[in-house]
Amino acid sequence: MKRVAVYRKEHFNAAHRLFRQQWSDEANAATFGKCSLPHYHGHNYEIEIKVVGEPDKETGFVMDMKKLSDLVQEKVISKFDHKNLNLDTEEFKTLNPTAENIAIIIFELLRPHIDPSLDLFIRLYETPRNFVDYPA
Amino acid sequence: MKRVAVYRKEHFNAAHRLFRQQWSDEANAATFGKCSLPHYHGHNYEIEIKVVGEPDKETGFVMDMKKLSDLVQEKVISKFDHKNLNLDTEEFKTLNPTAENIAIIIFELLRPHIDPSLDLFIRLYETPRNFVDYPA
Amino acid sequence: MKRVAVYRKEHFNAAHRLFRQQWSDEANAATFGKCSLPHYHGHNYEIEIKVVGEPDKETGFVMDMKKLSDLVQEKVISKFDHKNLNLDTEEFKTLNPTAENIAIIIFELLRPHIDPSLDLFIRLYETPRNFVDYPA
Repeated sequence: MKRVAVYRKEHFNAAHRLFRQQWSDEANAATFGKCSLPHYHGHNYEIEIKVVGEPDKETGFVMDMKKLSDLVQEKVISKFDHKNLNLDTEEFKTLNPTAENIAIIIFELLRPHIDPSLDLFIRLYETPRNFVDYPA
Repeated sequence: MKRVAVYRKEHFNAAHRLFRQQWSDEANAATFGKCSLPHYHGHNYEIEIKVVGEPDKETGFVMDMKKLSDLVQEKVISKFDHKNLNLDTEEFKTLNPTAENIAIIIFELLRPHIDPSLDLFIRLYETPRNFVDYPA
Repeated sequence: MKRVAVYRKEHFNAAHRLFRQQWSDEANAATFGKCSLPHYHGHNYEIEIKVVGEPDKETGFVMDMKKLSDLVQEKVISKFDHKNLNLDTEEFKTLNPTAENIAIIIFELLRPHIDPSLDLFIRLYETPRNFVDYPA
């Protein structure tokens, strides 16, 4: 069985701040530092979607990258691009938009729409020097 | 046992089109879209060769990167660089040159020439935003 | 259990040469080539520190990246940055400073200072085309 991983990169820009509503402003500042400043800041988020499976005998594709790209646009990019994650999205109304949590949410948005025979992994770059993988 | 992975990047440029000979032109166009246009298109392919093993006690090397680079030049780059994969190579005369299939072929070209105690993995970038790993 | 990997990139510049003291100059030249030239050469080393664990329920962090970055500065960068690895560091007085060995040393410098519940992995780029992972 020849399992291959295919990767597709997409991106979105969004504002956020790290902030836990149950905590005081002082507690937020002490834990999250500049990332908690009240007027938000932004990132150029890069998403790397990894899909693992056997290439189809006829097409040679694990999954059509055009279809994967369209799916990510529809389920993820159209939701988050140029939004304020804390204010404008249902997902992060109460959930702290750390890179870890954003990657988990992106996984959960895509997983139901990808063939169950394929494994899915998300890498999210918050900056070129800070990024996360889910699942690890 | 201290297993280390060492990586070496190499590159080649080649033309290809995605095309299944057993299908009609219409079927190819419907499945592969612009990637099937009849006059071919090209990519700057980047290959990342990963070799895993224990560093040699004396040299501190898992494998001499110069020897690995020379091997990749001889077995892979000299075959595919500046070629039309569909027309000019034995490997893709009938096999559709998807990134998945090219990565599998590169693995098979290199595997016999690398010490059996070492594991081998291939990553192939078709573009900076589309890439594959084999084995996954 | 939702395990997430978080990555932080840091960098340092250093001189080194590949050289095994128990060998003659000729044997070193034959094995290490230009990497063994007597007057040293340098690299812009990039370190990618990967830490794997469950995000904290309150903060949404696997580990505070600011704390990780500070730790890497203190334990690794301050030791190696702008140094001659062969001449100026205890670690490589007798150990050959291959990328493999540098990655293992960085792992050993950091591991005692990271929560035992978290897994640690090091990637070291010697150049953009030559890099290693430890553990593999």
